Amino acid sequence: MSDAFAALTELLGPRLNRSQSDRETHGRSEGHFPLMPPDAVAYPESAEEVAAIVKICAEAGLPVIGWGTGTSLEGHSIAPRGGVTVDFTRMDKVLQVLPEDMVAVVQPGVTREALNTELRATGLFFPVDPGANASLGGMASTRASGTTAVRYGTMRGNVLGLEVVLADGRVIRTGTRAPKSSTGYDLTGLFVGAEGTLGLITELTLKLHGQPEAVSAAVCAFADMEGAVGAVIATIQSGIPMARIEFVDAVAAAAFNAQSGAGWADAPHLMVEFHGSDAGVAEQAERFGEIARDFGAEGFRWASLAEERGKLWAMRHNAYRAMMAAHPGSAPITTDICVPISRLAEAVEETAADIAESGMPGPIVGHVGDGNFHALLLPRAGDAAEWERAQALAARMAERALRLGGTVSGEHGIGMGKTKYMQAEHGEAWQVMAAVKSALDPGNLMNPGKLLPGN
Amino acid sequence: MSDAFAALTELLGPRLNRSQSDRETHGRSEGHFPLMPPDAVAYPESAEEVAAIVKICAEAGLPVIGWGTGTSLEGHSIAPRGGVTVDFTRMDKVLQVLPEDMVAVVQPGVTREALNTELRATGLFFPVDPGANASLGGMASTRASGTTAVRYGTMRGNVLGLEVVLADGRVIRTGTRAPKSSTGYDLTGLFVGAEGTLGLITELTLKLHGQPEAVSAAVCAFADMEGAVGAVIATIQSGIPMARIEFVDAVAAAAFNAQSGAGWADAPHLMVEFHGSDAGVAEQAERFGEIARDFGAEGFRWASLAEERGKLWAMRHNAYRAMMAAHPGSAPITTDICVPISRLAEAVEETAADIAESGMPGPIVGHVGDGNFHALLLPRAGDAAEWERAQALAARMAERALRLGGTVSGEHGIGMGKTKYMQAEHGEAWQVMAAVKSALDPGNLMNPGKLLPGN
Repeated sequence: MSDAFAALTELLGPRLNRSQSDRETHGRSEGHFPLMPPDAVAYPESAEEVAAIVKICAEAGLPVIGWGTGTSLEGHSIAPRGGVTVDFTRMDKVLQVLPEDMVAVVQPGVTREALNTELRATGLFFPVDPGANASLGGMASTRASGTTAVRYGTMRGNVLGLEVVLADGRVIRTGTRAPKSSTGYDLTGLFVGAEGTLGLITELTLKLHGQPEAVSAAVCAFADMEGAVGAVIATIQSGIPMARIEFVDAVAAAAFNAQSGAGWADAPHLMVEFHGSDAGVAEQAERFGEIARDFGAEGFRWASLAEERGKLWAMRHNAYRAMMAAHPGSAPITTDICVPISRLAEAVEETAADIAESGMPGPIVGHVGDGNFHALLLPRAGDAAEWERAQALAARMAERALRLGGTVSGEHGIGMGKTKYMQAEHGEAWQVMAAVKSALDPGNLMNPGKLLPGN
Repeated sequence: MSDAFAALTELLGPRLNRSQSDRETHGRSEGHFPLMPPDAVAYPESAEEVAAIVKICAEAGLPVIGWGTGTSLEGHSIAPRGGVTVDFTRMDKVLQVLPEDMVAVVQPGVTREALNTELRATGLFFPVDPGANASLGGMASTRASGTTAVRYGTMRGNVLGLEVVLADGRVIRTGTRAPKSSTGYDLTGLFVGAEGTLGLITELTLKLHGQPEAVSAAVCAFADMEGAVGAVIATIQSGIPMARIEFVDAVAAAAFNAQSGAGWADAPHLMVEFHGSDAGVAEQAERFGEIARDFGAEGFRWASLAEERGKLWAMRHNAYRAMMAAHPGSAPITTDICVPISRLAEAVEETAADIAESGMPGPIVGHVGDGNFHALLLPRAGDAAEWERAQALAARMAERALRLGGTVSGEHGIGMGKTKYMQAEHGEAWQVMAAVKSALDPGNLMNPGKLLPGN
């Protein structure tokens, strides 16, 4: 092992860091997992260096863990078995923007906000928006989505191709810059969502979209959760091409008020956004308004100016922090179920009733246009019994998602937190995943302890 | 081997057919491949029967080949090493239509037209349209697309989940009915486009789309290919949400005239379609008209009535036959390259010049909104030298696609015809595909001789 660190130091010089503070920084996550530091943190600057790191680790039997911005929520980037964390902070270049092809080629450490800043003058943008200013390599690895997936799809649909360093240090390219291809297994799709367990992404070719001519956003309140969820279902089924449609329950609305002085009613809300031509946006907004009012929507606030919209979505993106701040001294557990739209009302209402019965705060927000929502369960820190009750609530949410034909994770991924549900969700199919994993990483060194039970 | 056939006959009775005529029917393709019949043809009626067939074949070391409607173009469904062809004709039920979730669950033998007939009253439709009335299992297996992919995506984006019989007879389910998921490797995406080499699809959960309120289609002529292709590129980059945008060169237009009395000018044409609200379609059509006229478009013919549009697209779908009929006595070779939109003009023009120089007919049509086009090369049957020249033209098209950052197949797939390009297109990545194949089908019995070189 010390030979390996010597070799890594020879390769990277001071860009191999074994200090306790840096190891601990890379041993923490935004989830509730205990500190699990790696043995060292490497800061490569090229795919060649990543390949060399992986080869040295393979020879020494050291785990290799990818790190973008550390914003994943299921402990994806921590190091339960030690090893070397590959931090992509220094691989943060936008390599090419090809406006005619609506494609950008980026290194994995580029964040979504940095890419969109770079794109501003091109008339194009990269739409996937998980809230956090995550790295694009990390977003691909967790198959991230967020508020705009209802219109623009998830990372699955917005990655055209990848460069990947495999477990044995080989470097491959998947996909092309053509809009579609039918030449063999969809390796791009296999590595997107693989959470770094099959290889490390060292370059991404991303699909860009035209900045809409016109954008309009709105917030409205509903008398009850049934009304808000009913409006979502009717809106999606009406075929209005919503760019965003977000649910915020009354508890979360109160947290927004406390954090940002939003001045919202003490009621469930929908936050919506429309993209299109001027006429198109006006038509969409009018149709949505009709549907929402049929379900009792009141207090519409429109935001047509970019600045107002920026504030609105910043508030949504800070929901996690606002909800934490509103309930200080709690030890949060995030949840992330996703169900077919026809079962969304049951899923949200049963979850809300279950949380209410627990007596624990558990605000609900969600990308409900996709059938995806999160309850942030907030047991008191240090209260073991309440922690157990929160875990049981989360487990019942997962079971509910599966019973209703859905999935235990719409966008956060499996990481360390959800391997226990893989058998229940996938049945024997998870063994097919395990067979693919063994074929591509026979030594189980790529992000071990994540995604697959027992790996 | 005779034990295996006895066991299959015991399982299926007369639904195991070993007659020469049925074997030969299943040994032919629409491509230029010689007769390669299986040893027997099985007509299962359930996933359980498919699993039993696969188990019997696995024990006897017999290849297993899936068969939908036999319309694939690269010899996907023929049997170069004999074995048992599993013909899904009797698994042709639409099992569930869930309008609220915009989802249909179908058996693999359902054709796209049969599904759309069943959906007619629901206000929903399944958009993927490769021209042929192919089976949905076959379309998923080749990752088919066609005229509407520019708007609605390919099979990759329109399959939510699958039931698959693996090489060892295990039956797995992939995906859920929720619109998205982030729980492990995207097995759905792995089996879509796998051409039956990893398992047989026995059920599909498909994404449906709302039938547009308004539809309008048009044809217009251009003075030259440059104008037509330039208009396509400008249209795509303008962000007009085209539902279809198809290129037809002058040679193909002449074939349409001969076959259907289209009365088109002796010139390259674009065929387009717009989907949306009444106002949206009018706006799109107007914007497209402006762009097309900037590139010299003339002779617009609009088709707003469903019947007129039906005729128009039937003509496009019969292009292959029309072009064959216009050049009797030829031995056609289909091609299928796809390039980034910015390289489309070069790709089409170089190809056209290359064909012109060969002296051989080679009409070009294509789903150019995706950068995808086909030349139908028509060497004289029995003329070995001309056949060689046609093969060389096809090879140069493939090289051109790769040089321009594209792919050797936009939608037809690899089958037997394009394995020779896998190394050039994918480099070492095809060995990753081979590793996945070995992991899931160690005996190489699932559709051997297809997709991967040397398999």
